[in-house]
Amino acid sequence: MCRWLAYSGSPVLVEELLYNRKNSLIVQSLHSRLGAEETNGDGFGLGWYGDQDTPGVFRSIEPAWNDRNLRELSRQLSSGLVFAHIRASTGSPVQQTNCHPFRHGRWLWMHNGFVDKFNQVKRDLTLEVDPLLYPEIEGTTDTEVFFHLALTYGLEEDPPRAVERAVGFIEATGKRHGSAHPIQMTVATTDGESVWAFRYSSAGKSRSLFYSTDVKTLRAQHPDNPVLHQVSDESRLVVSEPLGDLAGAWNEVPESSYGVIRPGDDALLPFTPAEPTLA
Amino acid sequence: MCRWLAYSGSPVLVEELLYNRKNSLIVQSLHSRLGAEETNGDGFGLGWYGDQDTPGVFRSIEPAWNDRNLRELSRQLSSGLVFAHIRASTGSPVQQTNCHPFRHGRWLWMHNGFVDKFNQVKRDLTLEVDPLLYPEIEGTTDTEVFFHLALTYGLEEDPPRAVERAVGFIEATGKRHGSAHPIQMTVATTDGESVWAFRYSSAGKSRSLFYSTDVKTLRAQHPDNPVLHQVSDESRLVVSEPLGDLAGAWNEVPESSYGVIRPGDDALLPFTPAEPTLA
Amino acid sequence: MCRWLAYSGSPVLVEELLYNRKNSLIVQSLHSRLGAEETNGDGFGLGWYGDQDTPGVFRSIEPAWNDRNLRELSRQLSSGLVFAHIRASTGSPVQQTNCHPFRHGRWLWMHNGFVDKFNQVKRDLTLEVDPLLYPEIEGTTDTEVFFHLALTYGLEEDPPRAVERAVGFIEATGKRHGSAHPIQMTVATTDGESVWAFRYSSAGKSRSLFYSTDVKTLRAQHPDNPVLHQVSDESRLVVSEPLGDLAGAWNEVPESSYGVIRPGDDALLPFTPAEPTLA
Amino acid sequence: MCRWLAYSGSPVLVEELLYNRKNSLIVQSLHSRLGAEETNGDGFGLGWYGDQDTPGVFRSIEPAWNDRNLRELSRQLSSGLVFAHIRASTGSPVQQTNCHPFRHGRWLWMHNGFVDKFNQVKRDLTLEVDPLLYPEIEGTTDTEVFFHLALTYGLEEDPPRAVERAVGFIEATGKRHGSAHPIQMTVATTDGESVWAFRYSSAGKSRSLFYSTDVKTLRAQHPDNPVLHQVSDESRLVVSEPLGDLAGAWNEVPESSYGVIRPGDDALLPFTPAEPTLA
Repeated sequence: MCRWLAYSGSPVLVEELLYNRKNSLIVQSLHSRLGAEETNGDGFGLGWYGDQDTPGVFRSIEPAWNDRNLRELSRQLSSGLVFAHIRASTGSPVQQTNCHPFRHGRWLWMHNGFVDKFNQVKRDLTLEVDPLLYPEIEGTTDTEVFFHLALTYGLEEDPPRAVERAVGFIEATGKRHGSAHPIQMTVATTDGESVWAFRYSSAGKSRSLFYSTDVKTLRAQHPDNPVLHQVSDESRLVVSEPLGDLAGAWNEVPESSYGVIRPGDDALLPFTPAEPTLA
Repeated sequence: MCRWLAYSGSPVLVEELLYNRKNSLIVQSLHSRLGAEETNGDGFGLGWYGDQDTPGVFRSIEPAWNDRNLRELSRQLSSGLVFAHIRASTGSPVQQTNCHPFRHGRWLWMHNGFVDKFNQVKRDLTLEVDPLLYPEIEGTTDTEVFFHLALTYGLEEDPPRAVERAVGFIEATGKRHGSAHPIQMTVATTDGESVWAFRYSSAGKSRSLFYSTDVKTLRAQHPDNPVLHQVSDESRLVVSEPLGDLAGAWNEVPESSYGVIRPGDDALLPFTPAEPTLA
Repeated sequence: MCRWLAYSGSPVLVEELLYNRKNSLIVQSLHSRLGAEETNGDGFGLGWYGDQDTPGVFRSIEPAWNDRNLRELSRQLSSGLVFAHIRASTGSPVQQTNCHPFRHGRWLWMHNGFVDKFNQVKRDLTLEVDPLLYPEIEGTTDTEVFFHLALTYGLEEDPPRAVERAVGFIEATGKRHGSAHPIQMTVATTDGESVWAFRYSSAGKSRSLFYSTDVKTLRAQHPDNPVLHQVSDESRLVVSEPLGDLAGAWNEVPESSYGVIRPGDDALLPFTPAEPTLA
Repeated sequence: MCRWLAYSGSPVLVEELLYNRKNSLIVQSLHSRLGAEETNGDGFGLGWYGDQDTPGVFRSIEPAWNDRNLRELSRQLSSGLVFAHIRASTGSPVQQTNCHPFRHGRWLWMHNGFVDKFNQVKRDLTLEVDPLLYPEIEGTTDTEVFFHLALTYGLEEDPPRAVERAVGFIEATGKRHGSAHPIQMTVATTDGESVWAFRYSSAGKSRSLFYSTDVKTLRAQHPDNPVLHQVSDESRLVVSEPLGDLAGAWNEVPESSYGVIRPGDDALLPFTPAEPTLA
């Protein structure tokens, strides 16, 4: 439905991440190779962490490929933690409040996929959102409701557990409404320090998701590649589809799992939705 | 907060209604005389009935005064029932799904005013909306929730009663949340045949609303005015503020009342919010 | 570069032309089969003749496939002469003033293709435009300059001759600036009565262009097709690519030729650029 | 017609310049006190110098007062040289390519005012632009042509002289076309190091322009004002109208003069258009 990119590492110019790659996210906005739709032209969003407490978010309803402001900002902004998302709407309106990433305090969230039969389950899902968080919902996407469910379930304390609970609730609700496969998702979220990336779908056939190989390993394999000497050891990309053809650079995130990118060792762990319990 | 215009009568070019008046709605978008805000530049909308079952709706986030598409359409479209609205946002995002008029089947709805403390009462109001209507809510304005409350209470069967119940519910909910004056409103709604226009506010100090004098009376007063000979006897305008200075042409809708414009005699009646009853 | 459609015939709902076809123009905006680019998402335009002297023009910078206003208008507007265009920018900014069709008085003009090395020849081409027409140029496309060259050369009196002179001038200017193949074009223009459609390129490899078969012939071949009984005998479509798969319905416009659709017999004639003569 | 602000000094958050003032530029976009128009809602632009060779430019066609992306960027970007502009169109289309500031290499340029009878003189002015610069003109404003005239006359070598020649040429051209008062202007331009600000009009009644008092002087006058201790000694603002009411803070730029803000002493000098000489 969409394509996204999450970067964590030494500060780089956003242009390096979004434009200067053979199969960059901007190229994918016109010609995605692995996406459910080839064209992702229904708006885009950029989230980045700078000197402020809160990350910046730039969102637009125009296709990314010809957006001059995105191009300008990409040439000026450097950041060590960047989220970028290009959208292919599955029906909800093309408007800035429906563009990812979504933000809550220092947290960002973006999603590729969909909640099945969303129009039918939307009310039940929205009712489950913490009433204090409810007024924050500004758009009409499944993703934003999903984000607020995760926040309701404690995203800020234990992200994997909160997402497992949110997905469990979405699945239980969907099934009650007759959906065979209630959710399809790759999700990235961050608090500005760590990045969590999830790959899961009720049908067990999730959208593609890749993470970049450890920089030290890549440097040993490609000692002459200058880019690999510019970035820090801990730099890591998670992407809907590989940005280039460098051998050994990209690894598929397995079905029903999630990765954590953080200071120190990263981790790859199984993801299991948590069934809702009675109150 | 906003300015609007409702026209019912013999078919006229939309341009006549929106542009060719001394204090036209387009002039009001830059310099409203009577509005709570002088500038109404946060998008606009046009609803009109043509040959189809369903009215057309054209909405844009650009200020009306310089919008070339609005100008073009106004020069091409003729209609006997037109709603037009220019918006001054009270906080909700400037996006097409927040522009009036809103539509449900053959019905249109537009509003000037606000629901007080909307962020605090939004959840309770939305929960009251018929779950079958709930998925139709596409934007994030108080007006759209208000419209769906009225639909829930039977707008399509008995518009005045439905609006009285919706306002009664909004007032009860607002008071529960500590609002002294829960609602401020002028509202117009239509099924394509009749137009209902309401003026009410909890504080008893409602936004301005005017209706045009009966055409036959005006013709007798101004026998040489050519415009008055072009329109049918039953033509009528309801507006947030007068479009011109013709003596005797404009009458204020009284506080806490509503008018009905319909084939046959029009009517002006008192408006009394209906307190919610226990189910 | 772009895709376009011109319709002349009995009045039809624009929706029929733009949406209700297997390979409609809206489908082509996302997935063109024959275009130089698959995606035509850099704005669109609609021109139509109604009751007024001047045709209406609706233009937007958003992709056509998700534009709600285009959808709304298409459901309300009927017309017997419609131009529609979806754009894939070849570099000039995505803005309404760069969207086709362009208008001059009662005339409309749209184009698929490009003027080679436009940045280098733009000044010379623009200088050739009649100084009285020059201030009318509002955008920055090659197409708009081309249109004004044709107007300068008498488009309103003898369209084929004016286009031949404009193309001749563009070719002579391009060659002086070192362009091997100065122009690539399919062009449609109309005065609201007749439609002229041109297919030509300096390289002799022009973009695709098709016209629909005479309705009477099609009816005889497909006696059970209901659509063919709804449209008048003289209805005709000219399109960048066929809108459907009806056998016998579509004919390619030959290289270096133009067609005239008009009351009475249509015609298909050779197109030969006219070399500029010394003043 | 428009309002603008130029800042040069120690790096500050753009939000401080655009939002956190009693009569900030954002406030002026809705309610200008001194402007020819009260509302400046026809787009805006922001230019800033960061770590790159070339300044960034962010431009939008939406009114500044509700633009969320401008708000976001203002909270993230710090810069020691900022240009900001809000537009009230005098007729040319509302599109990004018509928003100020305009850029050429490291140079920025913005303007409040107009070239009189621009439609009539546009061709002659444009022809005078260096043919190598001509293709860079992307919009349709008088300002952009004026900028390219100044570039043609050597803006990058001697800005005051180049602007004097450009204005002289515009005045001579305008008079030839029957304009009594060919130009009205306040202009700011910068190479990223110095800022030049001009105030001039053919009629001798120029739009308002103010510069801020030397910071050391202000600190002595207002020893307890914390803002004055945060900015460097050399910080300076030039604005269409004062941003606040601090006594002694704002000085009017005299008629027919220009100021230079640069490392070392600033200067205020007379401005005299240079009559064109025969080639």
